[in-house]
Amino acid sequence: MPELRKDPILGRWVIIASERAKRPDDFKSPPPTPKPANCPFCEGNEAVTPPEIMAVRTPDSRPNEKGWKIRVVPNKFPALTIEGNVDKRGQGLYDRMNGIGAHEVIIETPEHLSSMVGLNEEHIRNVLWVYRERLLDLKKDVRLVFGLIFKNVGETAGASLEHTHSQLITTPIVPIRIEQEIKGGKIFFDYRGRCIFCDVIAQELEYEKRLVINDEHFVAFCLFASRFPFETWIMPKEHLTHFETIPQSLLPALAHILNKVYVKIESVLKHPAYNMLIHTTPFDMEETEYYHWHVEIIPRLTRMAGYEWGTGFYINPVPPEDAAKYLREI
Amino acid sequence: MPELRKDPILGRWVIIASERAKRPDDFKSPPPTPKPANCPFCEGNEAVTPPEIMAVRTPDSRPNEKGWKIRVVPNKFPALTIEGNVDKRGQGLYDRMNGIGAHEVIIETPEHLSSMVGLNEEHIRNVLWVYRERLLDLKKDVRLVFGLIFKNVGETAGASLEHTHSQLITTPIVPIRIEQEIKGGKIFFDYRGRCIFCDVIAQELEYEKRLVINDEHFVAFCLFASRFPFETWIMPKEHLTHFETIPQSLLPALAHILNKVYVKIESVLKHPAYNMLIHTTPFDMEETEYYHWHVEIIPRLTRMAGYEWGTGFYINPVPPEDAAKYLREI
Repeated sequence: MPELRKDPILGRWVIIASERAKRPDDFKSPPPTPKPANCPFCEGNEAVTPPEIMAVRTPDSRPNEKGWKIRVVPNKFPALTIEGNVDKRGQGLYDRMNGIGAHEVIIETPEHLSSMVGLNEEHIRNVLWVYRERLLDLKKDVRLVFGLIFKNVGETAGASLEHTHSQLITTPIVPIRIEQEIKGGKIFFDYRGRCIFCDVIAQELEYEKRLVINDEHFVAFCLFASRFPFETWIMPKEHLTHFETIPQSLLPALAHILNKVYVKIESVLKHPAYNMLIHTTPFDMEETEYYHWHVEIIPRLTRMAGYEWGTGFYINPVPPEDAAKYLREI
Repeated sequence: MPELRKDPILGRWVIIASERAKRPDDFKSPPPTPKPANCPFCEGNEAVTPPEIMAVRTPDSRPNEKGWKIRVVPNKFPALTIEGNVDKRGQGLYDRMNGIGAHEVIIETPEHLSSMVGLNEEHIRNVLWVYRERLLDLKKDVRLVFGLIFKNVGETAGASLEHTHSQLITTPIVPIRIEQEIKGGKIFFDYRGRCIFCDVIAQELEYEKRLVINDEHFVAFCLFASRFPFETWIMPKEHLTHFETIPQSLLPALAHILNKVYVKIESVLKHPAYNMLIHTTPFDMEETEYYHWHVEIIPRLTRMAGYEWGTGFYINPVPPEDAAKYLREI
């Protein structure tokens, strides 16, 4: 069973993924990316994946057979396992618990496309609806407190399969990155009485130079302190805390802006590797005045070297004002 | 001039390195690694680098000419610049300051070797002495509060030149990673009255299964909550806070254990890309009872994907007990 371990100095948890255990020689040559004929995510190859958890299908089709538009399956090589007890325990200075959690794959289309850009906005809206449904379902499991929806596009960004897909991992603890954002939001709220994310939106709308898209319901902009070149965030203008309770009426607008940002990034950077992730409030937290869900899109153009690992200080060679200009103008 | 910017939510700083500014097309094809004949770090090519800051040389040789063993030069494409004022300023929610700091390169040998493993221990000891001297010198600059010594080996680890070298970056602020480690150490100290790093050493020595090398003065072990496969830390057994005040008498022992760990990692993992970094107490902090300098060595075998970026939760497929066993047995 995978194990969660906590660093006693930093309070950071790691997943020791024994199910994916590797020997030193295993790192030398990663397996080649399967081509359509034997891609486990392509229509017709449903039997290769674990049985589906949910799907958007034509009414006459049957589970785990052809006829689907979007399909959710458990990850075949999960980082965490859904069966068992959390079983928290200590060992001297160290804390550990069983690696309980869900690790699901959202196969976004039966066609072998390498990005979401080939899909129409209605289809993207359905993918977003599936994200929402899966979070709502997993939230019922009281062992789990947080779910991250994310997407790896391209080998450099960690994708092991080319066929466009997203993933969802839920954990029995709130990840440190989310904890720190919530803490930052709380400190600001205690001091100023406002949501810092709402204030960031207001300042970006006024400043304009880092804006990429400004819609009725959403704004996309390059972050003032971008860690990575062309790092772009999408935020709902309304103060919303939990992604999974997004009003259905906002899904078309989100599909629209997400698609437009993907198209811009893929055009300006000529199909770069990138990651997308959705930061949302933990399942076990009520709606708050100080946290605000958002989407982060991170093109993977630069390499993390010793300085970044050693300090948490990122070196970004593209000012976000320049990045936003390129993205706006395409 | 490069700029330092602070994320208002997380308090994390980034360097917007305008001197290294890039256009979208610049990311497509990184320049090829120069071969010995035109490697700027090889003996005979001294004129290609900026003038040297210090060197270990034969008595009859002259600066910026042949006859050196170790040479320190400013980075030709520095992330920060040494000239100017820090000039802290705000803009609404955001904080920024000038990117003041030193960015130096320590060329470890005149020969075109790709790692330190080809050097003898006396030579490595001299490299460590140079690290110490450069930190002591830069510490005199009151604008700068922290210096990170680090090393990138292999392209995947961010090395743009093959010729073995280390780097040193000093900044006018303490990086968030160091701040968090100090804070973690302080919390533990306030509660238990002991240095958490010393306690980690004691627990690792007793447990034994994560030990790689146990010397008279130093211990090397795989971290309980390793972020990366084969992540190895080297710590002085004595409670020492500032690397730059390491007693000269400890340098041979440190050169010995560092060399042994490099040899083991390069043998077990067949010349992997890796990073080395030295975490030490900020220049402007006195000796404390709760921070302890240490060396972190991070082989770069796995890719950071959306989940790691989104959560700060690392997925490590090699239990550190297994990694330590491989490293011990070679």
